[in-house]
Amino acid sequence: MKAVCLLSGGLDSSTCLAQAHRDGFDCYALSFDYGQRHYAELESARKVAKALAAQDHRIAKIDLRAFGHSALTDEIPVPKGRAEAAMNREIPVTYVPARNTIFLSFALAWAEILEANDIYIGVNALDYSGYPDCRPEFIHAFERMSNLATRAGVEGRTHIHIRTPLISLSKAQIVRLGQELGVPFELTHSCYDPDPAGRACGQCDSCLLRAKGFHEAGISDPACA
Amino acid sequence: MKAVCLLSGGLDSSTCLAQAHRDGFDCYALSFDYGQRHYAELESARKVAKALAAQDHRIAKIDLRAFGHSALTDEIPVPKGRAEAAMNREIPVTYVPARNTIFLSFALAWAEILEANDIYIGVNALDYSGYPDCRPEFIHAFERMSNLATRAGVEGRTHIHIRTPLISLSKAQIVRLGQELGVPFELTHSCYDPDPAGRACGQCDSCLLRAKGFHEAGISDPACA
Repeated sequence: MKAVCLLSGGLDSSTCLAQAHRDGFDCYALSFDYGQRHYAELESARKVAKALAAQDHRIAKIDLRAFGHSALTDEIPVPKGRAEAAMNREIPVTYVPARNTIFLSFALAWAEILEANDIYIGVNALDYSGYPDCRPEFIHAFERMSNLATRAGVEGRTHIHIRTPLISLSKAQIVRLGQELGVPFELTHSCYDPDPAGRACGQCDSCLLRAKGFHEAGISDPACA
Repeated sequence: MKAVCLLSGGLDSSTCLAQAHRDGFDCYALSFDYGQRHYAELESARKVAKALAAQDHRIAKIDLRAFGHSALTDEIPVPKGRAEAAMNREIPVTYVPARNTIFLSFALAWAEILEANDIYIGVNALDYSGYPDCRPEFIHAFERMSNLATRAGVEGRTHIHIRTPLISLSKAQIVRLGQELGVPFELTHSCYDPDPAGRACGQCDSCLLRAKGFHEAGISDPACA
């Protein structure tokens, strides 16, 4: 059985890929080069895909910069040192419009070609409650749409499942799950704003959530060694 | 009011753009460079967008070739001289997996940035009944998903409408509508397999449907002059 697994190279998507592998799937990892300024994550994605024995790993180049508008692709400063309440209160400037919709659409295309019925995405509704496209209701609507979008859907042959094993886990639970599944944490990369050498800033939302997760799980983060 | 209008440069999408303009929208035309072999259509899209007074026209480069698998991007021969019954009986090899899903996802991203609530797509369920992602049920599911995917959806501010003015028209009706709306037919480009100079082959499904549409509408096709 094949599954397409969206892989950014961060803690969540790497844990998600490991879960897909544990679930018995041959994993086809998919990353995107979308002009993100945290380009180091693509290097992480390559290493993680290899370490977790993905059957194949593709990096699709897409042109989100054509529309601009997010801290991840633009020159807007990434917010630093924010309290968690502030992260959850509003949609962050690091939100990229329709990003998960676009990523899942590409995953759907590849799934159709591979004749895979399963797509894994490491979205999380707790720590990223501010992102509209991390919510369960969005995922369900995408799944419903997918089953009408494809050749297989028309022929009634198969059904696409969008699998979100992390959606209701806390960051600490994700860290513990990742450890249990043997995720090479030292290869993963979460920072929105690394320095030119690829080192995490330690102060953006993503770094803060990661640090809190490792702390609460009682595990030390080898990427910060 | 702003609308994002998907524009391939063909007869249908050009007529759809003209309809959006007639409906009173400021039109933001969006085309894709996805390694299609009928590259001439992008030249048509540029000219049509200009002729129909689009506010802006962007061409997003996307990497569908990374997954391969269709006559429009691969080296599979485009079928020629097929009877219409054969076109409708099966999903054609010119089908690109999840293409409209991907195109609409990009349109959704741009719509969110523009704060536009309307997306026009020139899909047609009659002449392209073989394409899963031209069916009304797919469009409705995409619209439902869109309204959960975006910042506006979370904030309950606006609703995305996916508008498909051509969905139940015959090709002849599209030609008549295009003429009424002043579509510059001579600039549009429909062929799946043009020669190196960009001239239509006259024998692929798209050329045959176009010729039949003009014939039935009693209008001569200036692109074939």
